[in-house]
Amino acid sequence: MTDTVRLPLDQARALTVEALSRAGLSPEHCAALADTVMAGQIDECHSHGLYRVLGCVRSIREGKVNATAVPEVVDQAPGIVRVDARHGFSPLAFRLGLPLLQEKARTQGVAALAINNCFHFSALWPEVERIAAAGLAALAMTPSHSWVAPAGGTKPVFGTNPIAFSWPRPGPFPFVFDFATSAAARGEIELHRRAGKPIPEGWAIDGDGAPTTDAQAAMAGAMLTFGGHKGSALAAMVELMAGPLIGDLTSRESQIFDAGLGAAPCHGELLLAFDPDLLSGGRAAENAERAEAMFDAILGQGARLPSQRRYAARQRSEATGSVDIPKPLHDDLLALLA
Amino acid sequence: MTDTVRLPLDQARALTVEALSRAGLSPEHCAALADTVMAGQIDECHSHGLYRVLGCVRSIREGKVNATAVPEVVDQAPGIVRVDARHGFSPLAFRLGLPLLQEKARTQGVAALAINNCFHFSALWPEVERIAAAGLAALAMTPSHSWVAPAGGTKPVFGTNPIAFSWPRPGPFPFVFDFATSAAARGEIELHRRAGKPIPEGWAIDGDGAPTTDAQAAMAGAMLTFGGHKGSALAAMVELMAGPLIGDLTSRESQIFDAGLGAAPCHGELLLAFDPDLLSGGRAAENAERAEAMFDAILGQGARLPSQRRYAARQRSEATGSVDIPKPLHDDLLALLA
Repeated sequence: MTDTVRLPLDQARALTVEALSRAGLSPEHCAALADTVMAGQIDECHSHGLYRVLGCVRSIREGKVNATAVPEVVDQAPGIVRVDARHGFSPLAFRLGLPLLQEKARTQGVAALAINNCFHFSALWPEVERIAAAGLAALAMTPSHSWVAPAGGTKPVFGTNPIAFSWPRPGPFPFVFDFATSAAARGEIELHRRAGKPIPEGWAIDGDGAPTTDAQAAMAGAMLTFGGHKGSALAAMVELMAGPLIGDLTSRESQIFDAGLGAAPCHGELLLAFDPDLLSGGRAAENAERAEAMFDAILGQGARLPSQRRYAARQRSEATGSVDIPKPLHDDLLALLA
Repeated sequence: MTDTVRLPLDQARALTVEALSRAGLSPEHCAALADTVMAGQIDECHSHGLYRVLGCVRSIREGKVNATAVPEVVDQAPGIVRVDARHGFSPLAFRLGLPLLQEKARTQGVAALAINNCFHFSALWPEVERIAAAGLAALAMTPSHSWVAPAGGTKPVFGTNPIAFSWPRPGPFPFVFDFATSAAARGEIELHRRAGKPIPEGWAIDGDGAPTTDAQAAMAGAMLTFGGHKGSALAAMVELMAGPLIGDLTSRESQIFDAGLGAAPCHGELLLAFDPDLLSGGRAAENAERAEAMFDAILGQGARLPSQRRYAARQRSEATGSVDIPKPLHDDLLALLA
């Protein structure tokens, strides 16, 4: 059992901001990144919590990330906001593009936010949750690095290519899912490798294209998509929609751009926002009840909605006003301030 | 081996139109439906080919389908076309809404076509393929009847809820996928039942929620989604996006509306169209090459793209100028003309 350190929320956030700031990140980026990693930590998604600060600092030091980039928001078309992140991190780009995305969705019915040239390290759910908080449904996707083989193939082409969706609900917790189209997250395989444990079947193939449960062989081979050819088709869709469709890199191109540094992937992200009122001809309230009836039918039989675990963790963190992080992580973060 | 009957394309289409016309379907609906079932037949998707004419005629005779419905096209918002199908079949509604959807996508960047109150029996790929033929990317989804249990549950909530996507490519064959979010199609389970064969594990659970390979028990129990909780999340998204979001029925509501008749599901459909030129800031040609490089990386390792089998079948059908259908189906169709 690793020792943990309990940090009050404001102290955890201040530590995050300070560590990022010392690495040279601009105040605007520090604030946006801190919100994102705190959202992960409060929900006890440790891999998307304060742990990510270490990776962000490493990416800044490697020199590819523009730590003071000022994202440029472009009103590209009646239904499109484009944000050129100028090789900075994505959270600030998202934050700056969000108001115009919301405005467009409310007047057009559907609108797209295309973020280009951004270093992406975060989960998508904090973003789609923000859009749901504005009463809009949202769909988001982004490629990553080419680690995942297409169905029937043996060589990596796709990234782990997450898809996230949100639907506004009464109360503070929207319906939200956010999952990789790969069978497992790359980090999970890495954790198995470090622990010297075999990975489950179906996660990966080795360099020769043979199924493997060896984490080391999997990292050197290729990951597999979830759900066979269907997951593979979705992974291809994410590549196309959040890559060529918006004038940005595929996971293969992003991997090449990385040039072996192992930094956060640099590429694009596509977010779509939908106005339930315009799309339903003004019957949003009645239709929200329809959706609630479906959620009741799921919950009423003892099944869970996606994100329920995260929301329960959030309520715990908010009740105590604190988060717990492993002591070694806390030490690493403090070392960044030295 | 069932005997087959080879029909020239024009004769197969004429037989379809005549059978539907005799059942009372208006000429406009006959033409749209004939195009749809011929597209299925030419691609050797037999379950979406001329076989569907029998089901359409049955649905008309059951009296729920409005056989002479004139769909109403509404310019709902700058980014939204709504078509009220007025309880007619969906292909004519799609056909009438398509021009405005394309126009909006080209001027707004992204646009939605919401079809309401339509009886849906066809695959989604003929529709997204039509949108791709106009140089646009497309995403389509529709609920069905509540046959599918959510992950972790035992009772049906979702439909088989297909998702289809298209990406325009040079030449006649776009990148297209179209799959059910259920592990298998309902028709596949029905075919196993008729043949007295067990179904694969993972397709369904029985009325008590236990895994089953018995097709009869599966039909009385619940189907499962593909890909576990991820497929289940996608199925929920389809319900929300093509149901409450556009002011239409969920699969549970559609099942209730059907009132045990077993007709085609009546509900909504959502199609999104994306303009690669506007979304990429005028760099569509360069980005199309990026996409082609990814397809090359898939095909170059011996993996297939979705729809390749259909396209090969289409080339065969076009080369012979004919389709082959089972003799019993031909007999059934001829009987509709008597």
